[in-house]
Amino acid sequence: MTRPSRRDLANAIRFLTADVVQQANSGHPGTAMGMADIAEVLWNDFLKHNPANPKWSNRDRFVQSNGHGSMLTYSLLHLAGYGLTVQDLKDHRKLHSKTPGHPEYGITAGVETTTGPLGQGFANAVGMALAERKLAAEFNREGFPVVDHFTYVFVGDGCLMEGVAQEAASLAGALGLGKLIAVYDDNNISIDGEVGAWFADDTAARFRALGWNVIAGVDGHDSDAVARAFAEARQPGDKPTMICCKTIIGFGSPNKQGKEEAHGAPLGVEEVEATRKNLGWPHPAFFVPAEIIQAWDGRARGAAAEADWNRLFAGYAERHPALAAEFRRRMAGELPKGFDAVIAGEADRILSAGAVKQPVRKGSSRLAGKLVEALPEIIGGSADVSLSTLAWTSASRSIDRADFSGNFVHYGVREFGMSAMMNGMAAHGALIPYGACYLVFSDYSRNAVRLSSLMKLRSIFLYTHDSIGVGEDGPTHQPCEQMLALRAIPGISLWRPGSELEALCAWEAALRRKGPTVIVAARQDGAVFAHKPEHLDGIRKGGYVLSQSAAGKPDIVLAATGTELGQIIAAGEKLAQAGKSVRLVSIPNGNIFAAQDKAYQDEVLSFGTPAVFVEAASPLYWYQFLKGPGTVVGVESFGESAPGTEVYRHLNVTAERVVAEAENLLG
Amino acid sequence: MTRPSRRDLANAIRFLTADVVQQANSGHPGTAMGMADIAEVLWNDFLKHNPANPKWSNRDRFVQSNGHGSMLTYSLLHLAGYGLTVQDLKDHRKLHSKTPGHPEYGITAGVETTTGPLGQGFANAVGMALAERKLAAEFNREGFPVVDHFTYVFVGDGCLMEGVAQEAASLAGALGLGKLIAVYDDNNISIDGEVGAWFADDTAARFRALGWNVIAGVDGHDSDAVARAFAEARQPGDKPTMICCKTIIGFGSPNKQGKEEAHGAPLGVEEVEATRKNLGWPHPAFFVPAEIIQAWDGRARGAAAEADWNRLFAGYAERHPALAAEFRRRMAGELPKGFDAVIAGEADRILSAGAVKQPVRKGSSRLAGKLVEALPEIIGGSADVSLSTLAWTSASRSIDRADFSGNFVHYGVREFGMSAMMNGMAAHGALIPYGACYLVFSDYSRNAVRLSSLMKLRSIFLYTHDSIGVGEDGPTHQPCEQMLALRAIPGISLWRPGSELEALCAWEAALRRKGPTVIVAARQDGAVFAHKPEHLDGIRKGGYVLSQSAAGKPDIVLAATGTELGQIIAAGEKLAQAGKSVRLVSIPNGNIFAAQDKAYQDEVLSFGTPAVFVEAASPLYWYQFLKGPGTVVGVESFGESAPGTEVYRHLNVTAERVVAEAENLLG
Repeated sequence: MTRPSRRDLANAIRFLTADVVQQANSGHPGTAMGMADIAEVLWNDFLKHNPANPKWSNRDRFVQSNGHGSMLTYSLLHLAGYGLTVQDLKDHRKLHSKTPGHPEYGITAGVETTTGPLGQGFANAVGMALAERKLAAEFNREGFPVVDHFTYVFVGDGCLMEGVAQEAASLAGALGLGKLIAVYDDNNISIDGEVGAWFADDTAARFRALGWNVIAGVDGHDSDAVARAFAEARQPGDKPTMICCKTIIGFGSPNKQGKEEAHGAPLGVEEVEATRKNLGWPHPAFFVPAEIIQAWDGRARGAAAEADWNRLFAGYAERHPALAAEFRRRMAGELPKGFDAVIAGEADRILSAGAVKQPVRKGSSRLAGKLVEALPEIIGGSADVSLSTLAWTSASRSIDRADFSGNFVHYGVREFGMSAMMNGMAAHGALIPYGACYLVFSDYSRNAVRLSSLMKLRSIFLYTHDSIGVGEDGPTHQPCEQMLALRAIPGISLWRPGSELEALCAWEAALRRKGPTVIVAARQDGAVFAHKPEHLDGIRKGGYVLSQSAAGKPDIVLAATGTELGQIIAAGEKLAQAGKSVRLVSIPNGNIFAAQDKAYQDEVLSFGTPAVFVEAASPLYWYQFLKGPGTVVGVESFGESAPGTEVYRHLNVTAERVVAEAENLLG
Repeated sequence: MTRPSRRDLANAIRFLTADVVQQANSGHPGTAMGMADIAEVLWNDFLKHNPANPKWSNRDRFVQSNGHGSMLTYSLLHLAGYGLTVQDLKDHRKLHSKTPGHPEYGITAGVETTTGPLGQGFANAVGMALAERKLAAEFNREGFPVVDHFTYVFVGDGCLMEGVAQEAASLAGALGLGKLIAVYDDNNISIDGEVGAWFADDTAARFRALGWNVIAGVDGHDSDAVARAFAEARQPGDKPTMICCKTIIGFGSPNKQGKEEAHGAPLGVEEVEATRKNLGWPHPAFFVPAEIIQAWDGRARGAAAEADWNRLFAGYAERHPALAAEFRRRMAGELPKGFDAVIAGEADRILSAGAVKQPVRKGSSRLAGKLVEALPEIIGGSADVSLSTLAWTSASRSIDRADFSGNFVHYGVREFGMSAMMNGMAAHGALIPYGACYLVFSDYSRNAVRLSSLMKLRSIFLYTHDSIGVGEDGPTHQPCEQMLALRAIPGISLWRPGSELEALCAWEAALRRKGPTVIVAARQDGAVFAHKPEHLDGIRKGGYVLSQSAAGKPDIVLAATGTELGQIIAAGEKLAQAGKSVRLVSIPNGNIFAAQDKAYQDEVLSFGTPAVFVEAASPLYWYQFLKGPGTVVGVESFGESAPGTEVYRHLNVTAERVVAEAENLLG
């Protein structure tokens, strides 16, 4: 049996792709066929991975950011021996298959992140490469490079046009992420056709300007040239590398290669056959000859690579047992033993302190500092506003290109890049990222928050300046609809704490959660009130009775979140003075509260009792909880540039308004 | 009276800024003080504008993208003679003042666009420069360059870090927008401090790589050097120009200049006085000497410039009367006389055709083609997916660097850049932009949609692939929460038509509106049903009774939007067969419907009657309309990669489910 040529190996990807897309009658053949030669060289000559253990901590990370070409990833996983079967491939784009339209983290072993929304896979990869540097700085010891891997990412024209890729690329250059290797699939085609009229960047020069090492002008169908490029890219250094490969989209298709027609639709039965002839691939659909299967099989090489590392790690564990145990804990995603005690201690401290006047962002920051001290897996950061978001805590230490041992990333003014990089770090393992910006600019990064939820990643998005209370900066900086929009992301968990105790529960839940959390914190002072110990349980359920002015069924329920607890507390006093039995309800996490059974919700909200919900934001979220007479006091217009308290008055989110609405309901 | 020095002129900006921010005790002095010399040269030597007529069509556009430094803009408008008084300046950041925290379009005469959300002002400016080229190609005739102006934009480090600026810059380079001149305020400072650790781009090289002319290394405090740079940038050519100016943030403040402390807080009373001494500015707060006032006054020069243009335009009007009339109409934002007839004609055609099976995106595209033919002010475009969004109509002609006379912009894969550029075109005047992408990727561009609403611009955002019906591309491409999030933007108008007639009303309303519109269109076939002429009025009210199975008060109301009209029609038939009186309601525009008086809403929804709302999206929007027993059939989890109809079944958004919910309500 002769060893197959590299072209034969690459052609296996091409025909698996063409045949699968043809059968599915849906999908994108062009990218996989165009990048097959590059991927073959990377996977067979360079990529360090073990198909039998896709979670091996020291594997190289491989991300296909141009995720519409998912058949490239699936073909690679199938051929390398990840247990993805031919039947799995045939089920491409079918319900509950392992081969969905775009690669999905958690669905397919070996897929490192969910891609498809362009540019974000690239930013995820930057996050992974940063995670590697950070963990290497933390865990590696003389003679024991236990964290030492590359991150490879494939990008297309589309990824490079997206702003999020620019943000991440710029930061990768500034941070000097030398073990990040990107491959640009320069095929000159996007959905609208030849890209020259709308994408005329000199990409090589652009990336050089961002501080990257660029290997330009590589023929992506010349395996030797590609191999030389990868070898050069892997040389030690502190610049990330961009390999610019000229490729032909749909390579091999005699009538469609090099054209948009090869991009997003099956080639057609006849054209697939013509491609077979053209490339000299005489095999029937879905069949790959044994010698090609064997040449691709990465299991033996992978097992050997992991065994080598296991030996290294065994020596490390002997020499540095505590570090080794810590590394294992971190990679397993387990919280440290002392975590419960830290939370309990902080709860006690807060409860003992009683009523304190402070902004939630401040209490939250103090807690974050405690947690950062206790949990070295936390890696914080902020999109330039470290000191106004107070994301920078007492325990924060900056990361920069000279020293990755810190725990805080200055992301610059790059909300979207930050969020997508956080997802990459969370997917990498051993790190829990939090990242901050003003709530209104969550808009810039929304799709990354969405993807973190789809991937169930433990990313923590910290948004301060949470309402019209922002004041003088005006409507561009005053969020209204952002919390609603974030709460509506499937699977998300959004906290808007109104006290330091609620903020503590938010952080606790975020750190315990398998999935992302949004923590929203006000800049201005919150309501001044003291919690009771029994509130803790209610906070953890997302909503609870804060107080009631008289026993039994109340006359009126006033419910709020965050700083608007102040309005309902003040309104409640007035109404109680007027002889009404008033129940005050705090709902710091509507997502968790909405997931409680109806009995608990009823216990808290006393369904049917007149109710006023108050939140200085879009009211739409709260109507779902109105089961009887009631109203929502919210903000449906843009804010104004003026001191925050004046804007509250101007938009009529005041205790007086709450009293008036309650009186109106009580008739 | 000696003519003041350029430095004196610039110092007027510096002290107005320092004094105003000090008095407001809130604001950003650093940028205005740092860019004062540059702005002085631009405004006094180059900018073509007429303070007495801020809406003169052929004025140069000036955008301060680093909008937090708004006191620069306000000082310029005050000094140049726009009627912004010292009292207006003193009211900086006060409720309803003309000098809000960030520059706001529509609030302050002379402010061309709302800035503050970083990067977007720059992208707006790219849109304005494109508008100029497009209108010049359309209207200018031999000897009559009636459209001939520059667009100037100031950007800071923050703007250049944001991805949206990259997207717009790349497209500006590809399109060769030679009359766009950007000035980079390279002061080395962002909120987190010196930017080098997180922003190490070689900005000059980066912009050269994007096809820009770059004038690097200009001392932003050397007025002659700045003047030479502007003169060079204005030379004819087909490359946009980036002037990189080294500046000192907070220039003149002896203890704070060059530091972050000068950025976002008042300098402090003592430091302002120290700055007075340092710069030799002996005048009291808010006082500018008469000779400086006089030197700044741009009214005479502006009146002369506009008078010149008026003479040119008078000649043009004589020689090309129809074109001149058309130009006047377009700049006034008036629709053409034939518009009503086009709408009426299309309505007749659709009503005559009866029930047609087709995707809404297709009907919408046909209508858009008709409208593009009838309204030359429409400038379409798409973020690369022209042919799958069907944004490309029968009447579309591409714009490219060689020919700006077309009406369709290939924005590339740049949703955010597209949207912000559209806002710039809408703000420029004489154009109505629409731009398309898949609904799920509205996430990428959300903040630009928000700003279009804050600015009340006539931008039309066209989003197709509107639900889990997208199918095989899977959850990354299937929107759930996006419509809710968009509908919650204050002032927005979101249509999700379920028929071609509803799509017609959507386009009609969008074109008539003073403010932005979102049109959401499905990829898959819509429900097959025939409209009655009387539906037109109801559609225009946002919601209406589509049909009722028996006269009188119905037993049940089924309400839906878009493709889910199919589910309620099928469910309605089943329920009617079972003897129930069923009312079917279509609510193609919840925003408009919610703004109708309660009596109309009640007339349509029969409040109190059991109701089922159906939309394959987050259900949260619809609870506001539930005034009695009822439920919402929606999508609260992510979708799946599978054929669309299977995903609908899997997530239980089916006629059978609607029937079951209705029966449950009816007991």
